[in-house]
Parts: sequence; structure tokens; C-alpha cells
Amino acid sequence: VDPDVLAKLRAIVGERHVLVDPDLTAGYSVDWTGRFRGSASAVVRPASTAEVAAIVRICAAGRSPLVVQGGNTGLVGGSVPMAGEIVVHLGRLDHLEPVDTVAAQVTVGAGVRLALLHEHARLAGLAFGVDLGARDSCTIGGMIATNAGGINVVRHGMMRQQVMGIEAVLGDGSVVSHLSGLPKDNTGYDLAGLLTGSEGTLGVITRARLRLVPRYDERVTAVLGFADVKAAVGASGHLRRRLADLDALELMLAPGIALVLGTDYASAPDALRAPAVLLVEVAAHLDPTDAFASVVERLDLAAVPLVAIGSEQRARLWAIREGHTEAIGRLGPPIKLDVSVPIAEIARFVAALPAVVPDGAGLVVFGHLGDGNLHVNVTGVLRSVANEGGGPPPVLPPDATVESIEHDVLTLVVAHGGSISAEHGIGIAKVRHLTMCRSAEEIAAFRAIKRALDPHLILNPSVLVAGT
Amino acid sequence: VDPDVLAKLRAIVGERHVLVDPDLTAGYSVDWTGRFRGSASAVVRPASTAEVAAIVRICAAGRSPLVVQGGNTGLVGGSVPMAGEIVVHLGRLDHLEPVDTVAAQVTVGAGVRLALLHEHARLAGLAFGVDLGARDSCTIGGMIATNAGGINVVRHGMMRQQVMGIEAVLGDGSVVSHLSGLPKDNTGYDLAGLLTGSEGTLGVITRARLRLVPRYDERVTAVLGFADVKAAVGASGHLRRRLADLDALELMLAPGIALVLGTDYASAPDALRAPAVLLVEVAAHLDPTDAFASVVERLDLAAVPLVAIGSEQRARLWAIREGHTEAIGRLGPPIKLDVSVPIAEIARFVAALPAVVPDGAGLVVFGHLGDGNLHVNVTGVLRSVANEGGGPPPVLPPDATVESIEHDVLTLVVAHGGSISAEHGIGIAKVRHLTMCRSAEEIAAFRAIKRALDPHLILNPSVLVAGT
Repeated sequence: VDPDVLAKLRAIVGERHVLVDPDLTAGYSVDWTGRFRGSASAVVRPASTAEVAAIVRICAAGRSPLVVQGGNTGLVGGSVPMAGEIVVHLGRLDHLEPVDTVAAQVTVGAGVRLALLHEHARLAGLAFGVDLGARDSCTIGGMIATNAGGINVVRHGMMRQQVMGIEAVLGDGSVVSHLSGLPKDNTGYDLAGLLTGSEGTLGVITRARLRLVPRYDERVTAVLGFADVKAAVGASGHLRRRLADLDALELMLAPGIALVLGTDYASAPDALRAPAVLLVEVAAHLDPTDAFASVVERLDLAAVPLVAIGSEQRARLWAIREGHTEAIGRLGPPIKLDVSVPIAEIARFVAALPAVVPDGAGLVVFGHLGDGNLHVNVTGVLRSVANEGGGPPPVLPPDATVESIEHDVLTLVVAHGGSISAEHGIGIAKVRHLTMCRSAEEIAAFRAIKRALDPHLILNPSVLVAGT
Repeated sequence: VDPDVLAKLRAIVGERHVLVDPDLTAGYSVDWTGRFRGSASAVVRPASTAEVAAIVRICAAGRSPLVVQGGNTGLVGGSVPMAGEIVVHLGRLDHLEPVDTVAAQVTVGAGVRLALLHEHARLAGLAFGVDLGARDSCTIGGMIATNAGGINVVRHGMMRQQVMGIEAVLGDGSVVSHLSGLPKDNTGYDLAGLLTGSEGTLGVITRARLRLVPRYDERVTAVLGFADVKAAVGASGHLRRRLADLDALELMLAPGIALVLGTDYASAPDALRAPAVLLVEVAAHLDPTDAFASVVERLDLAAVPLVAIGSEQRARLWAIREGHTEAIGRLGPPIKLDVSVPIAEIARFVAALPAVVPDGAGLVVFGHLGDGNLHVNVTGVLRSVANEGGGPPPVLPPDATVESIEHDVLTLVVAHGGSISAEHGIGIAKVRHLTMCRSAEEIAAFRAIKRALDPHLILNPSVLVAGT
């Protein structure tokens, strides 16, 4: 980086919040999976929106590209400085304002971690509508920038549906701030919605006004077993329509469950050993057990439903679902593809998948059936690389096979009317695949918007609309 | 209009779908209230997205501004050709595809009328989440363009929350189409959300993929009376938090109810004669009466709740709420302002309103309390102008008093942290007020986006970001 730029950045945030020593910047230069490793020319840690704005103005004037980083828990490389960019790390923007219980909203800094927001809302008698596995690390700013999803989308929607207002610094350093959080406010274009999911390419989100949802204390968690994916999908439509209080609707298949349970699989209850399994959660103010039972008795199940009794059993059922990632990881690094498929096509898509996976590779599919979101994991293809010395994990080996498998799976997704990215975004990982599901006209519109809000093309330049 | 442009338009849509005779274009040149009256240089009625694209390309090449028109039921002049624009009327884009019951979605043309969509969804066992008084006339395209609201926002959100995908023609004539309706689809900027609420200034919406919601057949409709607005607002927070099935939460005040009921007011049930009245509706699959009763018994009411028994009583209660507009109209043309106020500020705002209204004027406030959306009506200020001959109503007299009252009320709204437009939009009516609640930086961002998607500035040029 230009020493003059560095000096200016130090003047803004203070000496100790500009890191240039490679030992210090290394941790900001790689994603947690180790797949994306770059090299930050500097890491800047602002503590306020005004500081972020000053940083962006310096970068804009110097045409110095920057990458915005929150919890760095993404899976597509969207917060990694692959081309030596300056990393603007927002962890210090961690102010959590008091909950506005009348509006059921809260204003938070971009650097607030999800688990803290959950706790904050809970103490006020409310809840936050998005939850996901990385809750202890991921930040609200990053979740907005990537329009994060997770396990409760079927009820509350993705991050975009939670964002009532945003404060952000655009690519020219101007600050747009609209945090009144009014549910109805038709006074111009929806900048908040546009910035949500823009993966740091249009503006640096510094604060947000979020809606909160009721805290439901009565829950039913159950496992339903079906003869095949088609039967599970059919039941999911019925459950979504008849259960207004449906909180989660997760699909697991026998290979994944067997992998998670290991030797315990043979003795597991019948519902868990069905070919296709739904993990269903209903949450309400009043005990939803009867409503749930009356809906379930009309389903064509392959086994007696397994209903959790008490929070411990509930946690055990969820552990099977959340244990998939770790169990898959034990087979060596997988090829992970996060995709959407229209619900009506899911059974056909899952049936067609094995044909596009190489002989000898493993295939584990699971996901958020309520949203048509599948996580496709191809195992046994990548070499397992030991993580030596406890440092950041190494880069996975480049492998033409990986590219071709990714391409074949995504081609199948698109052939079934699906999307190549459901909740993880495009990042760096899928830039080359974007044309598979977006037309030249749409990409031209994206680029026009990019140039409108980031005229010097300094924000996350390798991401999403790279090459603008 | 340039005869060459006209000839090209005729070649696209056919002779009989290009209107230039002033007798024929007159009906497209005024809004239904008569407040906004312009003069269309031509009216073009395309029947397909391809025809719309061809029209926009002709207009772009000729730098001929156009105004998009659907049901023309707006209240802010957003679909009126005030400067002799070409009107592109989308009434022929009225194709209603079969309901996808698995995804609970439907794809519809921009010209489909809301009431038809409601019926279409109902026959498939589902419902559409937005409803409003103009349901027989307003079109889905116009509702998306204005991000329409209405009476069920408290449960289902505004139009933006229903739009799962959009097909539109941008200002350069390019077509963007993304109608797969996948609930999770993080593959680029949210064009659908950006076009929603853009009031025809960024693109011409031709088709949309809409989410449908469950059809709830069990309802409780009740009137709750409170000692004052503050008590009603406090109760509304409690109702929103405890009733997951809350469908509507409407505020009425004694002056409005007295106006609607006339001589029947004195004999009305106590709940209806309280100073502040909530009309509450709960809808569910299973009878919500008990859940409703258990929540209501904890409220501090001024009178015994009035619960509708049967659909006829329900309709009578709703007729009081929906009769406000007509009853106000009987006093002569009102000054109508659609505003949002943070729920915590509503009581103070309503208390402060009389001071900014001239002596002798009447004041009727009602609205969607669940969303903080108030309709402020100032009566007895404008001259009543008879509507002669049954034609379109005449333009209201220009009146400096109107401007100053509008300005004073909106200033009060902003002072309470509110928005100058809740659900009606900016249109032409509030362009001059936009700076009251949007910063120079925000408006600059709006204009940059406008130029990005409508480079020749031909789409609804007098609306929203006029003067770009």
C-alpha cells in the first residue's frame, strides 16, 4: 500500500488499528475453510461509521481496493483479500442498542455477533428471526451483506426480511443512513434491500435496524420418516400449509444419517432409519402438540413419528442434523455446493444427482427443505490435507476434477429450474458460474448498479460482479 | 408525438391499441380523484413483454418520455402524464398462470386486477397476502411499482414481501426476467426488491412471481374501546406480540366513527363510542376465539369488547373502518396525507396534530395502527367542486393554504421520527417534500440508480426523483 494512504488510515483509526505486519494480517487473509487464501496489504479496524466513511474516501481517492470483513465465516471467499486489498474489519462496530419493545426492533452495529443479538432479544422477551450454525462467530453486517439464511427461513425469511433500515458507506465515501425502522415507508428506492445480499460490492454496511419476532416458548420437535424423497416433499407442502407455527423443516437422507450416527444407526428408531427423514419444529405461545398431531396423522409416513420429549431429546435430534457437516468432514474435504431447487423438482433432482458424480465418490445431501435449499456434498474426491501446526488450514489442492464436478452439479441444478447459490452467495467461488442462472441483461443491470454506487470500483472488486 | 414514433408504436401493438384522439386519451390523463390532470400525447396498450420492450426501445431512441399505467388508482399522481408523456397502459398483460400449490406461488401479468388474484388463489386453497380497498380496480403491476400496503401488512408485509421474482423492461429496453420464485436465491442484486416501490421510474414491470399465503378460514373480528390513543397503542404492542395469527389491527378515533355512523352513533355499543377504537382481526386454521379471549382479558379496556358473531356482523364492523373515506368525502374534498409514525410516538403525534390545523378545519385520523400508518384527513379547507357531467372529476383548486397545511403536518410527522409517505408513495404529489425525510446523500444515490437503469431518463420522469 502507498505509505501516504497508510499514514492517512492511521490518522483516522489510530496507529494500533492499522495492521501491516504479515504475522498480524495473516489471520484476516484466509477463510476458515482454508480454501481461499490471499494477502491483505493492510487491515484497518474502524470504530465508527464516520471512520469507515473516512477510510472509504481515502481508498476512493487513492483507487485502493478494499475488502470488508466481519466474522469471516462465509463459504464462498467473499471476505478474503485475494488481490492484496486493504481489509476493513468491522469487529469494533459492536454497539448493541436497547431493544425497542414497542416496535419490536433493535439497532445494532455491523460487528455485533449473532449469538449476542439472540441473547439481547431474548432478555427483552423477543427473538431474532435468523439462526445458523456460525452464530458465535458471524456478525450482523456480514449476514446482511450476504443475505444469510439458516434454519428458520421457512418461518421468518432470510436476513433481507429482517432488515428494517441500514446505515452504510457507499463507494464514494458518502454515508446513507435510514434507521427509523418504519414498517411502511415508501419514500424512494429500497437501498436497504439492495445492499442486503450485495456482498460488500455496493457499500460498507455499518449499522442496521432489525425487526425482532415473538419469542415462542412452546415447541414440538419431531422426526418423520418417509419411503422416499418424493413422499417427504409432498408432506412438506402439507406441513407448510397447515402449520402456521412451523419454525423449521429440514431434510436428511439415509446416507447422511448413517454417517452421523455410525454404529448407533442400526439401533436407531425406525423414523430415523427411513430413506427420507424430515426434522420438523413447531413453535408457538400455546402448546402446539395437538395442532401438530392432527396434521401429522394425515401424512403417509414410513414409520411411527419420533417426537422429542424435553429439551435434551430435542437437542439430540438437532445434533443429528447439525452433525452432518462434521461427519462429512471426517471423510476428507468435501465439495460443498449450496443450491436451491424448486420444491416440486427436488425429488427428481436428488434422483438425478448420482449420475453426475464420479464413480467411487460419496454423495451426501441434506438441507432446508422448507425453502428448497439443499446442501450437496461430494466426498472422496479431494485429497485430505492435514492441518499442520494448528495454523489456518491449508489451501485445498487445485483440481480440474473439482471444477468439472461443480459444473456438472450446478448444470443439473439449473436444468431443474434451481439457483446456483441459495444462501451462501456468489463470492469469489461462483463468479464464473453466474452466467448459468443470470442473463446477460441481468448482469449488465448489476454492473450498472455497481458503477452507480461504487464509481471507482474499489469495494470487494473480486466478488459477485467481478470484472465490471 | 413525432409521427414517426407513432407509426413505429402502431407497428408494434397494432393500430387499435395506439390511442391519440383526445376523447379517447382523456380517461388515461387524470387520476381518479381529479387532483392530477395531464394530457397523454398517446396511449399505447401492449399485450406482451416483448411489445413493452419494443415500445421502450422506440421511446428511448426518440427520447420520448413515457408514463406507465395500471389501474390508475394511486393517490399521488404517479401514473398521470403531467407533461404530455406517452402512456403505456398494461391492462392487456392480464394473464394469470395456474397456482403452483407446492411452492405456494403464482406468476401473473402486471395487468391482473387484485380481486381476480384473490379469487384465483382462493380456488387453489391459498390466499394472497395483500388486500386493499381498490381491489376491484388496482393491478398487480401498479401495486408492485408502488409497494402497496393495505390492511394485512401487520401479518404478511407489503407488496415487496410478496414478490418472489419479477420480469421488467429497463429504461434501455432490455428485459430482465427472474421468475423462478426460489425462496433462497443469492445470485446477485435484488432487482425485484429494487423495482418494487420504484414507481415506474426504473423499469416497466410486466410479470411477477408472487408468494401466496395459507387461506385461514377461522376468524375472530372484534372492536376494542380504549380511554385514549396511548392506551390503544399500548394494547396494540401486546396484541402483536401475543397473537401470532393477528391479521389486522386498525385504529379509529371518535370523530371518524361519529362521522361514519351519523345519527346511529349515540346508540352504538360502548366499545365503538370509546375515544380510541381498535378493529382487530385474527385468522387461523383452528378457531382462534380462545387464544384471542385470553389475550384480550389482560388489556385495559374502556368498554366490553364487541366481538362479531358471523360474517354479517364482521362485514358491518369492517364497513365502519372502510366507510371513513366516503364519510370524509361528504364534507368536501379533504387534504389527505398518508404517513408513518413510530408506534411509540403515535399518541404524542395525534395529540399534537390539532395545533397545526387551521381553526375551523376538521381533522379525521385513522389508519393501520399495526404498522404505524396513519391517514390524516383535514376537512373543510378545500372548496367543494361539483363534478359536472359525469366525466372525470375536476382538478382541485390550487391553494396556498393546502401547501402550507401539508407542509405543517409533514413537518410534524418528521419531528416525530416518521415518514412522509407510508404506502401511497411519492409520485408527483410529494416530490417537493422528499428532502424532509431523505438526505442529500440518499437522494444522490437514488439518482445514480435511476441513471444506471434508465440512462435516457424516459421512465415516469416527473415522479419520485424528478429533476434527475
